Amino acid sequence: MQETKVVLPDREIPRQWYNIMADMPNLPKPPLHPGTKQPVGPQDLSAIFPMALIEQEVSTQRWIDIPEEVLNIYSLWRPSPLYRAHRLEAALGTPAKIYYKYEGVSPAGSHKPNTSIPQAFYNKQAGVKRIATETGAGQWGSSMALAGTMFGLDVTVYMVNISYKQKPYRRIAMETWGATVHPSPSPFTNYGRKILEMDPDNPGSLGMAISEAVEDAASHDDTNYALGSVLNHVILHQSVIGLESKKQFELVGDYPDVIIGCCGGGSNLGGVAFPFLQDKINGKQLRVIAVEPSSCPTLTKGEFRYDFGDTAGMTPLMMMYTLGHDFMPPGIHAGGLRYHADSQLVCQLYHDKLIEAVAYGQTAVFEAAIQFSRTEGIIPAPESAHAIKGAIDEALKAKEEGRQKTIFFNLSGHGYLDLAAYADYLAGKLEDYEYPETMIREALKKLPVV
Amino acid sequence: MQETKVVLPDREIPRQWYNIMADMPNLPKPPLHPGTKQPVGPQDLSAIFPMALIEQEVSTQRWIDIPEEVLNIYSLWRPSPLYRAHRLEAALGTPAKIYYKYEGVSPAGSHKPNTSIPQAFYNKQAGVKRIATETGAGQWGSSMALAGTMFGLDVTVYMVNISYKQKPYRRIAMETWGATVHPSPSPFTNYGRKILEMDPDNPGSLGMAISEAVEDAASHDDTNYALGSVLNHVILHQSVIGLESKKQFELVGDYPDVIIGCCGGGSNLGGVAFPFLQDKINGKQLRVIAVEPSSCPTLTKGEFRYDFGDTAGMTPLMMMYTLGHDFMPPGIHAGGLRYHADSQLVCQLYHDKLIEAVAYGQTAVFEAAIQFSRTEGIIPAPESAHAIKGAIDEALKAKEEGRQKTIFFNLSGHGYLDLAAYADYLAGKLEDYEYPETMIREALKKLPVV
Repeated sequence: MQETKVVLPDREIPRQWYNIMADMPNLPKPPLHPGTKQPVGPQDLSAIFPMALIEQEVSTQRWIDIPEEVLNIYSLWRPSPLYRAHRLEAALGTPAKIYYKYEGVSPAGSHKPNTSIPQAFYNKQAGVKRIATETGAGQWGSSMALAGTMFGLDVTVYMVNISYKQKPYRRIAMETWGATVHPSPSPFTNYGRKILEMDPDNPGSLGMAISEAVEDAASHDDTNYALGSVLNHVILHQSVIGLESKKQFELVGDYPDVIIGCCGGGSNLGGVAFPFLQDKINGKQLRVIAVEPSSCPTLTKGEFRYDFGDTAGMTPLMMMYTLGHDFMPPGIHAGGLRYHADSQLVCQLYHDKLIEAVAYGQTAVFEAAIQFSRTEGIIPAPESAHAIKGAIDEALKAKEEGRQKTIFFNLSGHGYLDLAAYADYLAGKLEDYEYPETMIREALKKLPVV
Repeated sequence: MQETKVVLPDREIPRQWYNIMADMPNLPKPPLHPGTKQPVGPQDLSAIFPMALIEQEVSTQRWIDIPEEVLNIYSLWRPSPLYRAHRLEAALGTPAKIYYKYEGVSPAGSHKPNTSIPQAFYNKQAGVKRIATETGAGQWGSSMALAGTMFGLDVTVYMVNISYKQKPYRRIAMETWGATVHPSPSPFTNYGRKILEMDPDNPGSLGMAISEAVEDAASHDDTNYALGSVLNHVILHQSVIGLESKKQFELVGDYPDVIIGCCGGGSNLGGVAFPFLQDKINGKQLRVIAVEPSSCPTLTKGEFRYDFGDTAGMTPLMMMYTLGHDFMPPGIHAGGLRYHADSQLVCQLYHDKLIEAVAYGQTAVFEAAIQFSRTEGIIPAPESAHAIKGAIDEALKAKEEGRQKTIFFNLSGHGYLDLAAYADYLAGKLEDYEYPETMIREALKKLPVV
């Protein structure tokens, strides 16, 4: 019998997160206060984050202990399985070996609970009663709702209005886990009311929803804010993916030549790749590839400079590859990959040529997703399908070159709640969109000079 | 750290299925030909089933080898994890230990691929090119679609018209796996055309869809039919659930006092319980409980007698607990539990008092599902939530009695594609329905006397 996957018992869940800031050749430049343009200190963040997370955000300690309470919840789905994609390899006729880590086994169906759980834990520990957060299509909101019910925290989610109306399933999941979900813009914040006054039918945007959630958290003593990607502590928590994968590769006596992750804010790529990147920094041969949509080509077409994390310009300025913070992505389906910038850690490592990047159009991505579903069975989330497309291309290159190669990608989530996008693809309704270079240059001209 | 689940490596997938017919104190009476009322022979079934499955249907051999090709596909998700429900136990304050086997890890999200995969394999081996089958909400159809793509078989699914229109997600999943899906009644069969002539907007029913699929298979040489529950060979394939669970219980040094499964056609209950029931037949103390909806109370209110397997009366007569084959269940959400009868194996064992049964209304079932989601994380399929309700009741009984007890249930699938039912429950729109005793007695009077 062919063995397909490597599973680990609960006791093999990593006990510490890996912090790549201990090993980076160059640390990111410090975030700057949006008003003073001076480096931000911990106190600037304490209105919306608990001190434990602020400490993790700035820590350069290599290993950070995972609390017992977090490990207990992680054990509901972790360690996640590492798969060998025998059937995809055969379909491609490639000499390459393809492996994938499957994060869709979490109750929320993606890798996001790896960080929502510790974020909820540290907030609970700090005496916080409620978390306010935003969500686009609902991946992050549902992960935070799950974490809230696990630690007895109330969760308020500002969900982009158009998704709230058109994609009810993830909203229902959040409510099933006990969260309160408001369509954003909402009448519950000053910012939301201002927009609704001008336009009662405003479809909303992720930028608006962030602004509402931050305002909610900043204006209520018992409430904090939580973010699902981009920040250093988020990527720290996601390192469990790569740490487990390293153990699993050891068990099969293999090691990846190429590691591939889709890249929206960077937490999924960082989570799977950074523990391996430590080896590369120490001299190991290894390629890491970030895959992004050509409709939001942050790394491949953006500029490396200071920009705001949000649309309204209220967050600190961070040193990132960016398309400009008022970037308006077209309505493609891979919702989680539509951020105008990326984690400053991913950006710095890309700048230092430790990470490569590639961009694909969505029809090629869905074609890859269909091929994967029909060979490996799992229907992937559209975001994760970007990594699949990257892996297939590497495998076909290995075939052309007649070379053995070990390819590894992160299958960050399943697509059960994204099936409408599959229906559109199968009906020929999806179109590719390349974000025009000229629009990027125009947007970047408007950025503040720091 | 608290250990939550027991996982097994791929090599621990059982190599043989367990056939309870080798151990039953009384075998079911033979199925009868619908016309002659004489026992059916293998040749009566060969127009729509391959000989390998017909042999399994009538075999009394205790162990039947699982083909290598099936094991290779099983390894995409099997062995499935056995969970200890620490957090649910704590919420209930029960001294009982609660375990569950989680079958939602299959690519189709339920236990159904345990049988769709071998059914596809044996059909492929017999030279069949296409499978015709029916589906209600889509659990079975999507599992058959998955199996078809794994073995290169075309799959045609007749999907109940109203589900086709109202619940598009599972239809899209089937199409993603390459199946052709027709709303039933369809213009592609004589039976379908006849109904459409009388009523072009007919909403369809599972009985009609079965008739269409059987007609399609019987009238095309290259096409066979496949059924997702009820039949002996289906329950045989599902025995992998219980066999794995026994190994997992051994590893934690425990053994269930009570085993609970929801019961629609019986394959999920039989799959999890029959390998343990062998021990009970051999003298071990053990209770097995079938949980059914009070809107379709087959075991708890039906009669044990010969009845047809389908609505039109075209299948063999089987000795079953039945509500009458023209039973019209109300439109409750737990779609998979709306069959008018049950597997003859489950019925015989219930008749012989080796199995107990209990029925619940759906609001109590959804209340249990919400409690489970908010403690254990996983949002269960409504069908599986019947087993959860049964387990919670047993755990509360143990609490009242102040008794230690080991409770085990099968969590047969996740509820990602059933979230609309959760929304209805959370909005207070679900109502309970007890199928009236008088209607059952009336329906049974019309059955043929054999």
